[in-house]
Amino acid sequence: MQRVLIVGADAAGMSAAHQMLRTAGGTGRELAVTVIDRGQHTSYSACGIPYWISGEVDSGDDLVARTAEEHRDAGIEMRLGTEAVAADLAARELTLADGEVLEFDELVVATGAEALIPEWALDASGELLPGVGPVKTLNDGAAWLDRFEEAGSGSHVVIVGAGYIGVEVAEAALRRGVGVTVVTRGHGLASLEPALQERVSLAMCDAGAEVVLEAEVTGLDVVDGRVAGVRWTGGEREADLVVLAAGVRPATGFLAGSGVPLGPRGHLRPDPHGRVCEHVWAAGDCCEVRRRLDDSWVFRPLGTHANKHGRALGDSLAGGSLAFGGVTDTSVTRFAACEEYLEIARTGLSLAEANAAGFDPVAVTTEGSTASGYMPDADPISLWVLADRPTRRLLGVQVIGGRGAGKRIDAAAAVLWHGGTVDDLAWMDLAYAPPFATAWDVLQVAARRVAERL
Amino acid sequence: MQRVLIVGADAAGMSAAHQMLRTAGGTGRELAVTVIDRGQHTSYSACGIPYWISGEVDSGDDLVARTAEEHRDAGIEMRLGTEAVAADLAARELTLADGEVLEFDELVVATGAEALIPEWALDASGELLPGVGPVKTLNDGAAWLDRFEEAGSGSHVVIVGAGYIGVEVAEAALRRGVGVTVVTRGHGLASLEPALQERVSLAMCDAGAEVVLEAEVTGLDVVDGRVAGVRWTGGEREADLVVLAAGVRPATGFLAGSGVPLGPRGHLRPDPHGRVCEHVWAAGDCCEVRRRLDDSWVFRPLGTHANKHGRALGDSLAGGSLAFGGVTDTSVTRFAACEEYLEIARTGLSLAEANAAGFDPVAVTTEGSTASGYMPDADPISLWVLADRPTRRLLGVQVIGGRGAGKRIDAAAAVLWHGGTVDDLAWMDLAYAPPFATAWDVLQVAARRVAERL
Repeated sequence: MQRVLIVGADAAGMSAAHQMLRTAGGTGRELAVTVIDRGQHTSYSACGIPYWISGEVDSGDDLVARTAEEHRDAGIEMRLGTEAVAADLAARELTLADGEVLEFDELVVATGAEALIPEWALDASGELLPGVGPVKTLNDGAAWLDRFEEAGSGSHVVIVGAGYIGVEVAEAALRRGVGVTVVTRGHGLASLEPALQERVSLAMCDAGAEVVLEAEVTGLDVVDGRVAGVRWTGGEREADLVVLAAGVRPATGFLAGSGVPLGPRGHLRPDPHGRVCEHVWAAGDCCEVRRRLDDSWVFRPLGTHANKHGRALGDSLAGGSLAFGGVTDTSVTRFAACEEYLEIARTGLSLAEANAAGFDPVAVTTEGSTASGYMPDADPISLWVLADRPTRRLLGVQVIGGRGAGKRIDAAAAVLWHGGTVDDLAWMDLAYAPPFATAWDVLQVAARRVAERL
Repeated sequence: MQRVLIVGADAAGMSAAHQMLRTAGGTGRELAVTVIDRGQHTSYSACGIPYWISGEVDSGDDLVARTAEEHRDAGIEMRLGTEAVAADLAARELTLADGEVLEFDELVVATGAEALIPEWALDASGELLPGVGPVKTLNDGAAWLDRFEEAGSGSHVVIVGAGYIGVEVAEAALRRGVGVTVVTRGHGLASLEPALQERVSLAMCDAGAEVVLEAEVTGLDVVDGRVAGVRWTGGEREADLVVLAAGVRPATGFLAGSGVPLGPRGHLRPDPHGRVCEHVWAAGDCCEVRRRLDDSWVFRPLGTHANKHGRALGDSLAGGSLAFGGVTDTSVTRFAACEEYLEIARTGLSLAEANAAGFDPVAVTTEGSTASGYMPDADPISLWVLADRPTRRLLGVQVIGGRGAGKRIDAAAAVLWHGGTVDDLAWMDLAYAPPFATAWDVLQVAARRVAERL
């Protein structure tokens, strides 16, 4: 009987746990699977938390895909509220916060990521100031519901960071009638090219938010132990609440000195089967993933990668051969508040990444329509397409637009997955009917325009 | 100066005309381009006609992408209201209905398709009975607006045929408050597998339509020279109007005896550059197209193929090298009336086609959600996925569901374009966020379920 110890009871860890038991049923491996997690929740959708805060989702329970009880019913030992504090690979031991030592034959690290907490967010005793917090766990979500409830609809929140979480929480706050300021170091929404970033910023402003670009938060004004304002390079404003959405880091502190190899920023770098080194496996937000286009390691803490890599890991650990083939850097979100509605998506490399990887990239931005122009539902859509001049290879696509814009990125992601060219994207057989597209889908018009410039 | 004569002023012909002039600007070819068309309209969206009839589109003019005047401004000679009745390839001559003979160096056939008109739809003099007609041209659309207007909202229409046009016209009639009966020889919506067909039929019934399957219309009841009822094998009903939507055929009658090679059903079979034989080119709905999956000729009269093949033809004729790489048999439509909303799409082979092509196909139908289940916009979606057992190659995907279901087919179409496997579809990097997908997109869940059965 192999003792498998999984640290982390969310997407990657629980996908791995279930898949290894399924696969073991076929391969005949005998596995005793124990999962530990410092929290009390399992298999929940962290991506859904902004929609819980906004009121679109009724309850935090709705975000839980499977409870601990359901996992136990599948034959998995679940030890929640249990934090790992140290590991010893040579001894194959994991030490818990209460001093207990667990032995393992195989260790699966699926601890995910934790929010970056700046110094200025903490009080003298190192605790988060009241009214300040990240949006990462179900507990964070519950805390934000309480904070927004208490502050009321006339209050103001400053969101630090304009990544997807920043944009989604801005949407949630605006829907609750709370004033919003977004402050970011960047030029706009982090993962888009300048040609498209501005449209996101404009939509947020049209919805009543204030957007402060290229600014670094320097500190908070604290009155009577509560946040009263936020100061940044070049400005300040009164505020009741502060959302920390400036990034996350892998939760791998307990592996320091363990003998498990960590990447330069504390990430694990498992192979497509989830193997890190002998007896150690990892998947999910504590890992970097392999980007197929430039064969580089990137940190993309997303539930969809965690689910896939976790499943491949579980299968491989139990003797199967499923592999996670890496990413093409695809993502999607939306900004929908106060009459504004934008879908935002990207796949592939940015211009800077393409240059860094040695490509000779050509980019064109194209304006079009999500449906045939004469249809009442037709909305504007902007596409940015990037290709390599000598090989004509498609390198990246970014899109912003109305309903139906976002998931259009999937066809481009499929071309990237296959290493296809911009001509493939331009000429392939995408679905056309007036409610859904123009006769040349706008994705293909955009690809054709790049093709003509190579 | 090469005399190029294009017969047909719609998507294929006008795409070809404009592209050959653009390309000639670079290659230095000198082209005199003349377009003739028996109608008075150019470059219009036939696919948009049902939405004009429904009232979603205000005017037939909205469906015209470019007018004759705009084409003339680009240097193209437009001769409308001019019908070609015969051709002589050896003499390079085209004869018009008025007896005039036009000489050409290159002939481009882009005459499209014409509706099949059954004998029972005609009066003794061979004219369409009042209240009966197809939905193919702008003139047809205008006639239908008049007929629905005259018949009023209490009237009843029988639609003969349950292809995409049949479904779309049913939607239009229901939206106008007209009673609808759809009669088809088939088991349901023509281009879907039985597993999904039933959902379309049920949605149409829930919207108040009557659906009669596996029935052949045998004749009309005519009272005072007008339609009063429709009879079919096994039934009949009173009706004021009859839509002929049981198919189209290539409008190539004028090529009989011309020396231009025609396929078994009167279709042209141009190569990827639009070449049929020396001095003759063709594209659009008068042609069959090459299906990549089984390398077969199929008749798929769709505007998107006409636009693409027309452009490749125009470029090639003028010395360029653009090629139309064939189709993967992708299409999409919707049925949206009386609180019902369904998006319907397919790509690739049917089970019967896969068997006929010598594959060893495995199909699985999967139920899922268009968005994360806890989101208010999440709608049911059903996917049918077909793969080849020995090679694991993806062969086809069909989908039915709520908003966001239809264009999901594009990612599958991209995999088919590249000859990818069901594993590619299952593991590639599709966009995930709760408003748009589940953590494993339902397309990937469906692919995975097939992969597990191979």
